[in-house]
Amino acid sequence: MEDKHFNRQLADDLALRIAKVRHEMRASEAQAALITSNPNIYYTSGRMFRGYVYIPAEGEVRYLVVRPQESDVPGVIAVRKPEQIPDVLAEAGISIPDVIGLELDNLTVSAYERLRKALGGVRAVNVSQLMRRARMTKTPYEIAAMREDGEHQTAAYRRISHLYRENMTDIELQIEIERCLRLEGCLGYTRMSGDLMEINMGSVLAGDNADAPGPYDFSMGGAGVDLSLPVGANGTVLRAGIAVMVDMNGNFNGYQTDLTRVWKVGDIDPRAMKAHEVSRAILHRLEKEAKAGFPISRMAEIAYEMADEAGLADYFMGHRQKAGFIGHGVGIELNEQPVIMTRNKDLLEENCTIALEPKFVIPGTGAVGNENTYLVTAQGLENLTPFNEEIMDL
Amino acid sequence: MEDKHFNRQLADDLALRIAKVRHEMRASEAQAALITSNPNIYYTSGRMFRGYVYIPAEGEVRYLVVRPQESDVPGVIAVRKPEQIPDVLAEAGISIPDVIGLELDNLTVSAYERLRKALGGVRAVNVSQLMRRARMTKTPYEIAAMREDGEHQTAAYRRISHLYRENMTDIELQIEIERCLRLEGCLGYTRMSGDLMEINMGSVLAGDNADAPGPYDFSMGGAGVDLSLPVGANGTVLRAGIAVMVDMNGNFNGYQTDLTRVWKVGDIDPRAMKAHEVSRAILHRLEKEAKAGFPISRMAEIAYEMADEAGLADYFMGHRQKAGFIGHGVGIELNEQPVIMTRNKDLLEENCTIALEPKFVIPGTGAVGNENTYLVTAQGLENLTPFNEEIMDL
Repeated sequence: MEDKHFNRQLADDLALRIAKVRHEMRASEAQAALITSNPNIYYTSGRMFRGYVYIPAEGEVRYLVVRPQESDVPGVIAVRKPEQIPDVLAEAGISIPDVIGLELDNLTVSAYERLRKALGGVRAVNVSQLMRRARMTKTPYEIAAMREDGEHQTAAYRRISHLYRENMTDIELQIEIERCLRLEGCLGYTRMSGDLMEINMGSVLAGDNADAPGPYDFSMGGAGVDLSLPVGANGTVLRAGIAVMVDMNGNFNGYQTDLTRVWKVGDIDPRAMKAHEVSRAILHRLEKEAKAGFPISRMAEIAYEMADEAGLADYFMGHRQKAGFIGHGVGIELNEQPVIMTRNKDLLEENCTIALEPKFVIPGTGAVGNENTYLVTAQGLENLTPFNEEIMDL
Repeated sequence: MEDKHFNRQLADDLALRIAKVRHEMRASEAQAALITSNPNIYYTSGRMFRGYVYIPAEGEVRYLVVRPQESDVPGVIAVRKPEQIPDVLAEAGISIPDVIGLELDNLTVSAYERLRKALGGVRAVNVSQLMRRARMTKTPYEIAAMREDGEHQTAAYRRISHLYRENMTDIELQIEIERCLRLEGCLGYTRMSGDLMEINMGSVLAGDNADAPGPYDFSMGGAGVDLSLPVGANGTVLRAGIAVMVDMNGNFNGYQTDLTRVWKVGDIDPRAMKAHEVSRAILHRLEKEAKAGFPISRMAEIAYEMADEAGLADYFMGHRQKAGFIGHGVGIELNEQPVIMTRNKDLLEENCTIALEPKFVIPGTGAVGNENTYLVTAQGLENLTPFNEEIMDL
């Protein structure tokens, strides 16, 4: 990952990614896919531009670039607007097929209607899910990028204990963590699936604020400091007796790891200490039992069973409002597939990268439990975010 | 703005906003609007939730909330999924009309198809543009929020000269500015129209990096530090002779101001100093001439004419890649209406809030020129971001 610009290694990896997309396309009616969303443009081209990636079932991939207007990358075709697509493809000897794949979970209705008209009213089928499937298992280049994320994110987390000052609030601590992450190379921006998701560089949840129900599909909520962005830190003073959960951004290169650890000021309720140990035990058991071929639903069941056996079911994955999952895929986007939940009928696949986050919210104390990002191998789960798992003192 | 929770003042303002939406709906076929996008949910409810705001042409507005699952706000109806909408509305004595307004510029095709099916295959018309029109002129509460943004953002900018250390890079300076803004209360998150827009808390552009063409529709580009997010700072060392343009996030309360100033290390090319004075002169002339009723196209023409007369047309609004506008509306989103460009045929309206950013990119030196956020009044433009307009020393 030293040279972030185009090189042989990335070129080979892109060929592999296109092969994965084509493999998924075989089960679709789409004779070609025209990719328009930022995460999928980045996935299929290794860079970010405004435009289209044309992926035929066979033959050369074409990059149709609206912006930037200049590009020295080979294979790029400049277009100004969607209406030019048929002409520029025709000039390249390509005719639009009868059935084209578009990302209907990402494209807005207006953009879709304009694009479909531009393509001569062609029949469109949805390739959003197919792209999620292709991206679910990672390539060697992607895994290397996520290893790099894990190294940087844990390096920044190692400094968190030193950032605390007496009478600090959760948001003040978060701001120092943000700076620490940014100085470590964090890009800050959190790419997420679902246009209704909003956050700024992650969340620090202190005390009962962890129990504030939010509008977003994060594992934990938090009231935030303003009604316009009700997530995370709410200005709670970090006093003795409360747990402080840190779940911040791990995007250092377009990929990201997802890492949660807990800190405390002074002593906290023994029940919260116990719940944290249950979270650790859940992760340790899943690290050993789960591997390629393991039922995803069973991973979630193990977590719920262990929380239940500890008498902590009421507090598991939230208290007032509960998350519907105990983990999720992670990569270019924070929330990828597979979703680790009881109703997921799939088996875990090799080279998936997943974040597991068995967390508890203990009223009066706050949120406890860890989250690591793992690479799924044939032998088990490899932790990409190894770092002290005990509750640490601020 | 002291009490950020519900109060009489906000309730009255929401009634005014709904009246503005209904005024725009009169020219639409929509008999009711069902609002789903985050910015418009915030606009019509004063808070952020996942769900729907049902706005009939007449009668009570209903807030259908999916998440958070608990709410103590009066008038809220809980729903789990779109399929329940007809039933919960029926229980409230409301039947879905024949023609319903949906935000087709915001809704994804998949979400739209599910929603339309849930509503019994009702005919949908696009209300995205109508909502942009309603939001273009601001209400008293919104103007107060934006005044507050301007005060906080200028307070943070006042500290920028003190953040510099010798041999600092642009990204290192940006990180210190981010911290400074956050400590001043900045929420960090940049809400923008267009799902292809991405940025983390704004951009610091030093030297020739200002000329790097980007994929996004920002006025200036910048290569960024990673191919996955090609915008803003790229690691340039802040050495003598280069201009450093700071254009960072001004979201302190769900609304935002947009403010750009320029700093330098040592002396810079006199041509850049001159270009900066031309930017100031453009702003000063527009501050006096533009007011409610003034042609928007003429504002842009004045800017282009003044840049041309100064012999700087080649460098105005970018050099290698040019922006298509010299300013834009700003509010809940960074890029609202009106767009200040020569082909905008509208007249400026009272209580619009607009950012004007006549900027130049001088090869070898970097970007110069200021940006202020203004409130449009009957008398002229009131600057919401008053702060020293000269190029400042780092």
